[in-house]
Amino acid sequence: MTSGISRRRMLAIGGAGVAGATAAGVAGAWGRGAIDDRSAAPDTRGAVAFFGQHQAGITTPAQDRLHFVAFDVTTERRADLVDLLREWTRAAARLTAGRDAGPVGAVAGPPEAPPDDTGEALDLPPSGLTLTVGFGPSLFRDASGRDRFGIAERRPAALADLPPFPRDALDPAISGGDLCVQACAHDPQVAVHAIRNLARLGFGAVSLRWSQLGFGRTSSTSRSQATPRNLFGFKDGTANLKAEDGAALRAHLWVQPGDGPDWMTGGTYLVTRKIRMTIETWDRTSLAEQEAVIGRAKGSGAPLGRRGEFDPVDLAATGAEGEPVMPEDAHVRLAHPDTNGGARLLRRGYNFVDGSDGLGRLDAGLFFMAYQRDPRRQFVPIQARLARNDALNEYVRHVSSGLFACPPGVRTRDDFWGRRLLGE
Amino acid sequence: MTSGISRRRMLAIGGAGVAGATAAGVAGAWGRGAIDDRSAAPDTRGAVAFFGQHQAGITTPAQDRLHFVAFDVTTERRADLVDLLREWTRAAARLTAGRDAGPVGAVAGPPEAPPDDTGEALDLPPSGLTLTVGFGPSLFRDASGRDRFGIAERRPAALADLPPFPRDALDPAISGGDLCVQACAHDPQVAVHAIRNLARLGFGAVSLRWSQLGFGRTSSTSRSQATPRNLFGFKDGTANLKAEDGAALRAHLWVQPGDGPDWMTGGTYLVTRKIRMTIETWDRTSLAEQEAVIGRAKGSGAPLGRRGEFDPVDLAATGAEGEPVMPEDAHVRLAHPDTNGGARLLRRGYNFVDGSDGLGRLDAGLFFMAYQRDPRRQFVPIQARLARNDALNEYVRHVSSGLFACPPGVRTRDDFWGRRLLGE
Repeated sequence: MTSGISRRRMLAIGGAGVAGATAAGVAGAWGRGAIDDRSAAPDTRGAVAFFGQHQAGITTPAQDRLHFVAFDVTTERRADLVDLLREWTRAAARLTAGRDAGPVGAVAGPPEAPPDDTGEALDLPPSGLTLTVGFGPSLFRDASGRDRFGIAERRPAALADLPPFPRDALDPAISGGDLCVQACAHDPQVAVHAIRNLARLGFGAVSLRWSQLGFGRTSSTSRSQATPRNLFGFKDGTANLKAEDGAALRAHLWVQPGDGPDWMTGGTYLVTRKIRMTIETWDRTSLAEQEAVIGRAKGSGAPLGRRGEFDPVDLAATGAEGEPVMPEDAHVRLAHPDTNGGARLLRRGYNFVDGSDGLGRLDAGLFFMAYQRDPRRQFVPIQARLARNDALNEYVRHVSSGLFACPPGVRTRDDFWGRRLLGE
Repeated sequence: MTSGISRRRMLAIGGAGVAGATAAGVAGAWGRGAIDDRSAAPDTRGAVAFFGQHQAGITTPAQDRLHFVAFDVTTERRADLVDLLREWTRAAARLTAGRDAGPVGAVAGPPEAPPDDTGEALDLPPSGLTLTVGFGPSLFRDASGRDRFGIAERRPAALADLPPFPRDALDPAISGGDLCVQACAHDPQVAVHAIRNLARLGFGAVSLRWSQLGFGRTSSTSRSQATPRNLFGFKDGTANLKAEDGAALRAHLWVQPGDGPDWMTGGTYLVTRKIRMTIETWDRTSLAEQEAVIGRAKGSGAPLGRRGEFDPVDLAATGAEGEPVMPEDAHVRLAHPDTNGGARLLRRGYNFVDGSDGLGRLDAGLFFMAYQRDPRRQFVPIQARLARNDALNEYVRHVSSGLFACPPGVRTRDDFWGRRLLGE
C-alpha cells in the first residue's frame, strides 16, 4: 500500500479514480499509482483501507500520531444527525485515501465560496490515516434524560456509564461527549487536517467538546511492531492484544452476535482516560523503586525475575525469604489477565505533552485508550483493582474519562457510520 | 549521516565511542555504525553534528517536530549558572548524537540511584535532534532591575525588549524567560525526551516557565526542502532565508564582528510569537478572500498575478483599472523585503494544536520563530507594519512573545554554551 503520490497529483490525474473502486480495492488503487517505492523503510506514507467488517484504526498497526476529539451534538433533529454521519463517512473515505475532504477551489470550486478543503494537507501522502468513530452514552440519553434522537432503547447495556473510581480527578470539561473521532496517522498534520475538516463539515450540528493530541504510540497492536516506551521510560504494551490474535480478538475485542443490540455486532467499546504523570517526581525515584512499581526491568522490559521482554510473567515466583518476586502492588501484577479473571484489553494509547502546568512542570502523561468487547467485564474491574492498590498511583492522576460505542465498519459506499443504529 | 543504530546498542558496543571524535567527525562516527541504509528515503533517523561555528537547529534543514521551552533561572549564584550551562552542553552533545543524557542504571548505574536518563528514547535513533539555546533579556537584568549574574553590562544593544505592537494580546505566563531551549527532531518523543532531561538536570537551578509543542514545520530553511503549508492551508516560507544563502546569511542572520559584544559574534537573535489562528472563521471565508489576504494562490503558492510558487513577487503590477494586483494590505506585500528596506528573517516556525478552547474551537495556530542578526532592524519594523495594516490580522492573535540571544556554536568539548558571556 505504498504511495508517494500527492493529493494534488491525484486530483490532476483523475479525481474520481477512487470512487468506482470496490471496498477491498481502495488502498490497492493507491498502490498502483505509487511513484516512490521505499521497500527498506516501514511504509508510513500509504493508505489504510477504509471499508471493511470492522472500523480501521483499532487493530491497524498503531500509527505514531493521534488527534482525538469528542463532540457535543448541538442539533436536536435526527435527520441532521443522519446527514452529519453520512457526510462524515463520505469525507472519511476520501481523507483516509489521501484525498481532500472536498475539492479545493483552486482546482475545482468557485472562488466566491469557501474551499471544500482547508488545504494544509495538500501535497501530503495518505500517511496511514485512519478515522474511527464512537457514540457516547449521552447520545442515547442526554444529561437531562432526554432521548433527543429516538435511540435510547437501542443503547447497549455494555455502554453503561463508568463508575467513579478511587482517586479519580476528572475534569468534566475534557470528559465524555456525544460523539468521538480518533484520527491516527504517521504525520500529525494529516491527522489534524482530518479532524479539522470533519469539525468544519459538522458546523451547525456539532460543537467541539475536547481535543487531545498524542505522539509516540505507547502500545503495539501488531506483532510486526516493536514495543514502544511510555513517558515513565518503560516498555508498555508487551502483552497487549494484537491484530494477529484472531481467537482472542473475538473473545475480548469485537462485539459478537447476541452480545447486545444487532447494530453493534462487529463493533467494540472504547474507554479513554487522560492520565497525567508527575514525571518530575518519577525522575527522582531510584531505578530499583521504578522497577518494583512497574514490575519490569527498565532496560529490557523483562518481567521481574525473568530475562526477556516476552518471557511470561510469573506471579507465583518467590525469593529467598519467601517474598514475591513480583511485588503485590506492582502494576504488571494487578493489570495481568491472571489477576483479572482472564480479562484483556486492546490498548492503543499515546504519550502527550500539553505544555507546562504553571508550577514549573511539564503537563505530560499518557492518553490511555482501550478497545474491548464489554467494559463491564474488562476495563471496569481492572481499573477498580488498579485504583485501589497500584503502586503507580503515587505517580499518576486520571483527569479525563470517556466511553464510546464504536459501531462496526462501513462496508459499502451506500453505508455510513451508525446506519444500523439510526435505522436508515 | 544515516544511522539506524539504537541508543542501547551503541552503549553495548562502546559507550565512549563518541567522546574521542573530533567535532566535525561526530555525526560521521554514527554513520560508520549504520545498520539500516535507506538511500531512497530522506534521512530522518541520523544525527546532526552538535559542534561547530554556529549552533545547530538554525540553518539545519527544519525537522518536522518541535518542543520549545523557556526557563526561569531560580538560583542566584553565578557559579550555579555556569555549572548548569556546562552540564547542559555535555548532555546536549550526547543527546544529539543519539545517546542518553547519562547512563541508564540498567546498563551502568546503581539501582539505588535515580537513572541518569529517563529512558523513553531508549531504542530510538538520533532522529535529527538539534538543541539550540538562547538567553533572554531578564537573564541580564531581572524584572526588579537586579544584575543577578554580573553580566548586565554585556547585554547586547540588539537584545532590546520588544516594543508593544498594536493588537498584542500577550499572556505573560507564556512569554519571556531567562533561558530558552529549542529542541527539533523528526520524532517528537526524541525532542520531548531531550527537553525533559535538560529540565531534570536543571532541577534546583531552573524552573520551567512555559513549553510549546509543534509539528509540521511551516518554513523551509534549505533549498532541499519543499515548501510546507501552515494551518491556513497556504504555503509558507517560499521566500525564506535558506541555509544555502551564504552572503545573505551573513547580512541578515549571523552576528558579525563589531555588531556588539564579542561573545555574540557568530550567534543570532531569536524572536518567538505564538500566533493563535481563528481557523473556524478562516474556513468559512471565500477562496478569493483568502488569496487576497495572503497574496498568493492557495493551490500553487504563486504570488498573485504570477504563475509559479517561486516567481518573484511583483508589487508594482496593476490590473485593468489601475488597482494593484497585490492588494495594499496583503500579507505577502507587507512582509516583503522591498516593503521593509530589504530586511529579511530566517523563519523556522511550527504549526500547533493545543486542544480546544472551551468555546467549541480548536486552540490552533502558528508558533512563529525567526532568527536574525538584529531584531531592531528586522523583526521589529516588519511586525510594526504588519500589526498596523495586515489583512491577516482579522484571523490571528499574538498571545505569547519571546526574545533570546543565541550564542555562537560550541566548538570543542571544553567549551560550553555561553562560556564567552560568562567569562570562564
